[in-house]
Amino acid sequence: MISNIEGHGHHISKQFNLELEEIKNNMLEMGGVIERQIADAMKSLLEGDTGLAAQVLTVEDRIDSMEVNIDEECSLILARRHPAASDLRLVLAIIKTVRDLERVGDESAKIARMAIKLSEEGEFSQGLVEFRHLADSVTRMVSGSLDAFARYDAEAALEVVRDDVAVDKVYASVMRSLITYMMEDPRSISRVLNMLWALRALERIGDHAKNVAEHVIYLVKGMDVRHEKLADVEEQLED
Amino acid sequence: MISNIEGHGHHISKQFNLELEEIKNNMLEMGGVIERQIADAMKSLLEGDTGLAAQVLTVEDRIDSMEVNIDEECSLILARRHPAASDLRLVLAIIKTVRDLERVGDESAKIARMAIKLSEEGEFSQGLVEFRHLADSVTRMVSGSLDAFARYDAEAALEVVRDDVAVDKVYASVMRSLITYMMEDPRSISRVLNMLWALRALERIGDHAKNVAEHVIYLVKGMDVRHEKLADVEEQLED
Repeated sequence: MISNIEGHGHHISKQFNLELEEIKNNMLEMGGVIERQIADAMKSLLEGDTGLAAQVLTVEDRIDSMEVNIDEECSLILARRHPAASDLRLVLAIIKTVRDLERVGDESAKIARMAIKLSEEGEFSQGLVEFRHLADSVTRMVSGSLDAFARYDAEAALEVVRDDVAVDKVYASVMRSLITYMMEDPRSISRVLNMLWALRALERIGDHAKNVAEHVIYLVKGMDVRHEKLADVEEQLED
Repeated sequence: MISNIEGHGHHISKQFNLELEEIKNNMLEMGGVIERQIADAMKSLLEGDTGLAAQVLTVEDRIDSMEVNIDEECSLILARRHPAASDLRLVLAIIKTVRDLERVGDESAKIARMAIKLSEEGEFSQGLVEFRHLADSVTRMVSGSLDAFARYDAEAALEVVRDDVAVDKVYASVMRSLITYMMEDPRSISRVLNMLWALRALERIGDHAKNVAEHVIYLVKGMDVRHEKLADVEEQLED
């Protein structure tokens, strides 16, 4: 579906239009780096690859400077171009989205740090299957939210919001089973806790993907749906 | 100290000036509600007051609608008034700050939920002293960051950034001692975990207070210090 705000091409000022496109592209490029970080962080944990984990940690600085630069570009375009209506929503949605993306980067770094700790503590399989399962889900959510942004697709964004409900349920159930395991085998406490932190980081990544999806819905539909119930949002989108 | 951007009073449009002031006041009012939420959540945990914890959870919705309303006011002022320079920074800082405040509200609600769980699990003293200590520190950080915003005081904001370093250290040390305790007394695992989550929520509140302080420094000095080292920020503020 192509959205109802594809009209970014109709500006009197061609230059303004190019500037908006460029900021959006920079944000999507940052999104690409983040997707790679998530994938590498997850792989480093699942395969005990500490070299890859260390690499994830070095890329963090690059993401931070991407966030600051895009934020600065957004401030400049607000100051110089006075965007209105959907252009203004686009700039505000980008400002909010880069902040969520930066947080996803932080959570990926946490996973990489847990990968290093888990690897130092030796063989450990508890929770790995569930980690892989959740990791696949939140990876899809992040990609889905960025694709929805690129295509101004509110329906696809809503799909991501829906996915977050499922991810939260899986997360809660894995947490319960790992806590039970820890009680049955107290020697595992330290390792299980590291796995818990890694799972929590996954759940947080899912939350941020959901936030990005909500920014897309705001951008396309002009509705702030952040604190609404899912059923209400679905109803409003149908109108 | 009064900052170098007190010039918000010099607008040609008196109405515009009033609008900016009103948004700022709404944000500070939201900050006041949040400070109350933190205090109540902490008290509910320390005193096992589940009634107070339940009250914290009911106030959450009110905070969510405050965030959405202030965000909307900021969008409107951007669209209608085309603020520039320090006015634009003020609006952007408010947009970012209300998001952090809303998250502080979320973390307070988490503490209230842990208060209810801990109370259900019966007598428990492990970690309470440290919880109180950390709670005092992050409460001061939140108040300090809001005061710094109200007075456009970059020095006071920097103080909050410094405090976060200390809070993170205390947090890491409490976590280690609670994990050791859990290993020595596996029957305590479930209760200690609830205390861990509550402590983690405190640490996150400290992070958000630090974010607000960084928005104040950006607002007053026009510098984005989010990913800079503390020593570098101090040096730049002296210039």
